[in-house]
Amino acid sequence: MQARCLRYKMSVLVVGSVAFDTVETPYGRREEMLGGSATHFACAARYFTKVKVVAVVGSDFPPSGREFFETRGVDLEGLQVREGKTFRWEAAYHGDMGQAETLATHLNVFKDFSPVIPDSYKDTPFVFLANIDPDLQADVLRQVKKPLLVAADTMNHWIADKKEAIKRLLGSTDVAILNDGEARMLTDEHNLALAAQKIRSYGTKYAVIKKGEHGAVLFCGERCFALPGLPLLDVVDPTGAGDTFAGGFMGRLSQLGEVTEGSLREAVLYGSVMASFNVQAFGVEGTANLTEEDIGKRLEVFRSLIRV
Amino acid sequence: MQARCLRYKMSVLVVGSVAFDTVETPYGRREEMLGGSATHFACAARYFTKVKVVAVVGSDFPPSGREFFETRGVDLEGLQVREGKTFRWEAAYHGDMGQAETLATHLNVFKDFSPVIPDSYKDTPFVFLANIDPDLQADVLRQVKKPLLVAADTMNHWIADKKEAIKRLLGSTDVAILNDGEARMLTDEHNLALAAQKIRSYGTKYAVIKKGEHGAVLFCGERCFALPGLPLLDVVDPTGAGDTFAGGFMGRLSQLGEVTEGSLREAVLYGSVMASFNVQAFGVEGTANLTEEDIGKRLEVFRSLIRV
Repeated sequence: MQARCLRYKMSVLVVGSVAFDTVETPYGRREEMLGGSATHFACAARYFTKVKVVAVVGSDFPPSGREFFETRGVDLEGLQVREGKTFRWEAAYHGDMGQAETLATHLNVFKDFSPVIPDSYKDTPFVFLANIDPDLQADVLRQVKKPLLVAADTMNHWIADKKEAIKRLLGSTDVAILNDGEARMLTDEHNLALAAQKIRSYGTKYAVIKKGEHGAVLFCGERCFALPGLPLLDVVDPTGAGDTFAGGFMGRLSQLGEVTEGSLREAVLYGSVMASFNVQAFGVEGTANLTEEDIGKRLEVFRSLIRV
Repeated sequence: MQARCLRYKMSVLVVGSVAFDTVETPYGRREEMLGGSATHFACAARYFTKVKVVAVVGSDFPPSGREFFETRGVDLEGLQVREGKTFRWEAAYHGDMGQAETLATHLNVFKDFSPVIPDSYKDTPFVFLANIDPDLQADVLRQVKKPLLVAADTMNHWIADKKEAIKRLLGSTDVAILNDGEARMLTDEHNLALAAQKIRSYGTKYAVIKKGEHGAVLFCGERCFALPGLPLLDVVDPTGAGDTFAGGFMGRLSQLGEVTEGSLREAVLYGSVMASFNVQAFGVEGTANLTEEDIGKRLEVFRSLIRV
């Protein structure tokens, strides 16, 4: 029992992308940084739990890339290597940095990504489906064995093209983790409380709506939990903030090993803490090398932010 | 001492507008509702403190209008009556209801409003300068005797025309209560933490930034206090939400009778609670007739919203 319990508390599977990002913001420019949804997720979740990655990279992916994950205890058994180039993304942020202007997307090997879940991953209790084709997300769920909790993200591109597939997918997940724009686009409701209600009507038990600088809201039963964003003087690069949030959220849930209103509230707090580190530096620089003390201090900053 | 203390705890002066509003939202249309900044403020603050109003109405202002305030214990000694018509405003809200589309503004007697503070108001400890010409706001401060705390609001129109006058005014106030758009426009800073820093550099000790559905942030010393917005299914009419927030904020401060980080945090909570009632109905219908129990319940909803 103890072993099972420990295992249950200690692993999360993420299916998403590993990429190289070139990003320009008012703070400068960085080329070919390690990025992608699975990378940002793993960088946050690994402080709280064992992370198992399913993604694809090209034959150009360097040993230092693998090493980055492995020195942080991240399991790469599910990282496929395909002949060709790794996914590249290039973007610029201006003004309020609320929205990235995509300058180039080279999907490369990610174009034909078909997630294969290794046997050793199949009974992972916590599963995060980062933003990929909703049919592939559903395919992942067919491969895994009764996870304790499945969370899914998506993006505007899939909402435009495959809205019905997303709705079906959400019927098989426990938590939808979307940003405000996605929630509105998916439901055609501007009011986020109404949007969350609609999202949950598709079958997902909980909805978490990320609002960037305005924080995040969890809809859970008849109740809500909301955290404001931490006012930061230095927002350097918001790339990956949503996946970092999801990493903190799922990582903390996995660490706690139970899904209750209380653990979900804590998970939103941990997601917000990790996302706040993410935006303060380029790529994963803000989250890659934190200490327990860094995270503890930032948790206290958030608790103090809302103390009344 | 006791008497002085009681007096100190029990009154707030508001200088602003009393108007008739015609508003159309997706929930319907209401004509000639009692509105204006001083009205919304008073409707919220009167639950917590004695409210003294300085404003102007026309000779068309009906006895029922006066009665509305007087039955709620609001002091109208400072309400001037001028020959002519009361201020009228007409607006429509669409879609997200974040922004009113002004259809008509008839300032009428409000055009030449010159605030005169009655002698009996001059030592009011808490003073709220609602959005009027910043030179008139400054004139009010010349008439009152050393208030314990002065808070001021403004709007885009004055920021465009009289930015320097607003900055000077903020040098004589303790709290700037602005919405996010105003804070950005006044400071030319998109980042709200930077905007608040600049606002405080003008001389005001505290800055409160209202973010509509996203809540409010208090900048106080080196610290922040932030409350998320309460996700509401029914946002019927946001008119006056900012003044209602200010009413709850100043009302609670006045009731507590002291200005500390703790009382300011509570004041933001009370402001948010009162604003949440305001938006759920047209005009002042949401705040005019609350019970202590209604307010207590909503306070608990907010406390539960951020409990972690």
